[in-house]
Amino acid sequence: MTFGTVAIIGPGLLGGSLALALSQRGLAERLIIYARSKSALEQLRNSCLMAELTDNPQDAVKEADVVVLCIPIESMFAFVAPIAHLFKPSALVTDVGSVKEKVDRDLSPLLAPNAHWIGSHPMAGSEKSGFSAARANLFEGATVVVTPTEKTSLLARNRAEELWTALGSKVVSLAPDVHDDYVAQISHLPHLIAAALANHPSAPALDLAGSGFRDTTRIASGSPGLWMEILTSNSEAVSKHLNRLIADLCDLQMILRDKNGVTDTTALRSYLQKAQISRSQLF
Amino acid sequence: MTFGTVAIIGPGLLGGSLALALSQRGLAERLIIYARSKSALEQLRNSCLMAELTDNPQDAVKEADVVVLCIPIESMFAFVAPIAHLFKPSALVTDVGSVKEKVDRDLSPLLAPNAHWIGSHPMAGSEKSGFSAARANLFEGATVVVTPTEKTSLLARNRAEELWTALGSKVVSLAPDVHDDYVAQISHLPHLIAAALANHPSAPALDLAGSGFRDTTRIASGSPGLWMEILTSNSEAVSKHLNRLIADLCDLQMILRDKNGVTDTTALRSYLQKAQISRSQLF
Repeated sequence: MTFGTVAIIGPGLLGGSLALALSQRGLAERLIIYARSKSALEQLRNSCLMAELTDNPQDAVKEADVVVLCIPIESMFAFVAPIAHLFKPSALVTDVGSVKEKVDRDLSPLLAPNAHWIGSHPMAGSEKSGFSAARANLFEGATVVVTPTEKTSLLARNRAEELWTALGSKVVSLAPDVHDDYVAQISHLPHLIAAALANHPSAPALDLAGSGFRDTTRIASGSPGLWMEILTSNSEAVSKHLNRLIADLCDLQMILRDKNGVTDTTALRSYLQKAQISRSQLF
Repeated sequence: MTFGTVAIIGPGLLGGSLALALSQRGLAERLIIYARSKSALEQLRNSCLMAELTDNPQDAVKEADVVVLCIPIESMFAFVAPIAHLFKPSALVTDVGSVKEKVDRDLSPLLAPNAHWIGSHPMAGSEKSGFSAARANLFEGATVVVTPTEKTSLLARNRAEELWTALGSKVVSLAPDVHDDYVAQISHLPHLIAAALANHPSAPALDLAGSGFRDTTRIASGSPGLWMEILTSNSEAVSKHLNRLIADLCDLQMILRDKNGVTDTTALRSYLQKAQISRSQLF
């Protein structure tokens, strides 16, 4: 099985990994990669990847059977709007953005009349970014959430599922707003908290930081620009969960030390126990 | 150089690793290990460790030139009080507890008249516990904080530094209350927050959790009993920093989404940038 002509818009960590994976698995008859910057195109030209390179949006999409948008969420509308009428009527169009309701709201009205649009979010990544961090096995074993709505065609659902499955991923289907609520809980809120923890200690205290602090704050090494955009695009859900977490922490504060400086050791132990159990069931 | 007769009180992760390291490096003429439980003694008897084993506190300490308390903080006073007069007058007595002011307050009055007491905190560990997780190289490259006070003898300072240095650790000297404030920031508060993050998501959201969530919550897998004790023993400092973090998160809440649902993207980006820089300077 191949997916015909596949266009990848933006060869960063995810787009680059997608190109490498499609190429390695022989899943595309033609691979077209669009990049805006000359330096990105130059980097691709010097890589071992066999692909047609272009900085022209029209050339990238007009013959593509599958188009995967791997550019920042904020740039997707601006990229698609001027060329929406040029997509092939049978084309599957999807993306790899971390927030789905906004992307669907932006792209569905543009694409639904002309092509088969469905949002995708591969739960794969790294705190690194750019083509130099890309790797062909990034999607193997990863969960990819696809986010159909009542407007999504059956073709879009099926083709997207086939695409991600062919790359070795496990596909989960969720409504865009449900997806955004879930990732706020397990990714976006933890990111914000990791940043708050990294910003908290004084310089001499940081000198003592060990592996616990390193792991707890690892994701705070992610690109500030990318994460600013993700958090902004999903601010409603993240804000709701941040509020709940603050309320939890206020309860925890009372457990840790009441007005008389006394710890409720029973409650504290059971709170830690619940966390330990919840986590050990996961990993 | 050897440290003569070394008694290790409690063969858990830290005590067991200490025994293995002293043995491997030939740093003890005699190695005495005290354990309360028959099963722990049995486990040691079946290990390859060459040591004298006892469940009698007096026998463990009375001939020791160095005694290292590797039992829970809450048990140290009860262990030492009945036998404090039996320590050798020249003995170095130290511990491996994660909180130092309480331990110093408990033990200094008991030990200072009879032996050379100084607190130690090896910044080494794991979310695993028990002798089966012990390893001879646990202290290599680790930072060990020693916590002298104005009552600490020069002999205690020097011998403790020699001991940890001989095990491959880097020694840092801090007052007990300063140590407790620093570790609240880089270890105890992150632990509490990791537990709160692990407790936060709904079950279906947890199904999507990936490597970011795994790392951010890793330390929440630590023993609830051990951490309940650490947090209780250092509740004043942890509570102070938890309060500050809650205030930070309330500020962040306003940055993320003001009353009109608008994100202050400039402030959010610079908050994330600060965290990224702070972390990248560390690791």
